Amino acid sequence: MASRANDGRSLVHHAVQSVRDHIKANDLKVGDTLPGEGYFAGALGVSRAVIREAFGALAALRLIDVGNGRRARVGAIDGSVMATSLDHAVATAQVSVGEVWDVRRTLELRTAELAANARSDADAREIVRLADGIAAAGDDLVSRTQHDVAFHAAIARASGNMLFLQIVRAFAPMMEIAIPAAWHTRTTEAERERISRLHQELAFAIADRDPASARMLMDTHFDASIRDQLVTS
Amino acid sequence: MASRANDGRSLVHHAVQSVRDHIKANDLKVGDTLPGEGYFAGALGVSRAVIREAFGALAALRLIDVGNGRRARVGAIDGSVMATSLDHAVATAQVSVGEVWDVRRTLELRTAELAANARSDADAREIVRLADGIAAAGDDLVSRTQHDVAFHAAIARASGNMLFLQIVRAFAPMMEIAIPAAWHTRTTEAERERISRLHQELAFAIADRDPASARMLMDTHFDASIRDQLVTS
Repeated sequence: MASRANDGRSLVHHAVQSVRDHIKANDLKVGDTLPGEGYFAGALGVSRAVIREAFGALAALRLIDVGNGRRARVGAIDGSVMATSLDHAVATAQVSVGEVWDVRRTLELRTAELAANARSDADAREIVRLADGIAAAGDDLVSRTQHDVAFHAAIARASGNMLFLQIVRAFAPMMEIAIPAAWHTRTTEAERERISRLHQELAFAIADRDPASARMLMDTHFDASIRDQLVTS
Repeated sequence: MASRANDGRSLVHHAVQSVRDHIKANDLKVGDTLPGEGYFAGALGVSRAVIREAFGALAALRLIDVGNGRRARVGAIDGSVMATSLDHAVATAQVSVGEVWDVRRTLELRTAELAANARSDADAREIVRLADGIAAAGDDLVSRTQHDVAFHAAIARASGNMLFLQIVRAFAPMMEIAIPAAWHTRTTEAERERISRLHQELAFAIADRDPASARMLMDTHFDASIRDQLVTS
């Protein structure tokens, strides 16, 4: 039984590798279609059930997209796989929220700096608009959180490095919990205004192409906001 | 057909979520066993085939470990999921090697700094031993690469933040290709000695608990080694 199960897994593992090799050998890009299960089953001399399992594993990893009954296509990285890993690692106490936030801070000091250097005019307008949206949200925590998550993603996008963007997006589910929780720890109007203003100053530093200030303001932002988020987690 | 396939996927998706919820609700930790497929099939009122697919997706994401015909257990994060994402993203031109290396540099400037603050005596000995191993490897590229990959992982481990370690480990497969390639661009004895010496100086800065020097030497290391690796990629 155990040995049959092992054989099955090793067949699936081999099939996963073959699909990945097919993508590389044919220089496929996001959205390109893959041959069907029957093709790989024939080419590898295995059952369609093995290929179906391999496609399932590849889809879980977002290497392929099998949605909507269409033919499988090459998948785009989107941060959700890492988000799932982070959620699992925190839930099972392999990693603390503080550790995740230190990694996030490390990356976002750099995205702020890069964004100030590389931002397009459209990026700058979007980042300023989102910072204004945070300030305008007042006590509407849904709107505030939405704008805040989008603000950090827009800065990462403006960095011009899509890997930073995907990793920053992986933090979004944790931010959606942490931002409202932190807000409740800020009970005075002055504290709340300070947080909104910090986001706007950071947006202006990026718009002004001032990487040193952008980095410093992101650091201050993490000192101020993230401490409040950690207190509550 | 398409609608049946969609229903199937949504059942699998729901089952994946239920297993994740079970882990959280029972506060399970790495290595703890999960109930069998039959338990979840009964609890959710779905077929064992649906649960088997869900377990396959969870195993692909390393959220559970189904190896060796044993009962499924809660999985440990180990960097391999992110390594697979990175490999796919680079192979399909979603991300360039230069972008990956900028993310890596950003993280490793921080791990060097943290390691200098947090390293245990055993960490310091291991980091110095691995730097000496890089120097002693000479033109043995297998040994050099092995020591170099382990050196960066040991620094990340000494940071005390396991998320940094897992992300740094995700870069290992790309380092295994890049390090030998870069070595071939360094044709003089002086260049090769300089790279070995840089690793040793970095190890000593961490052993000396000097975070500023550790960060600076890691930066110099990236300027020197990574430029050579990018030239060849």
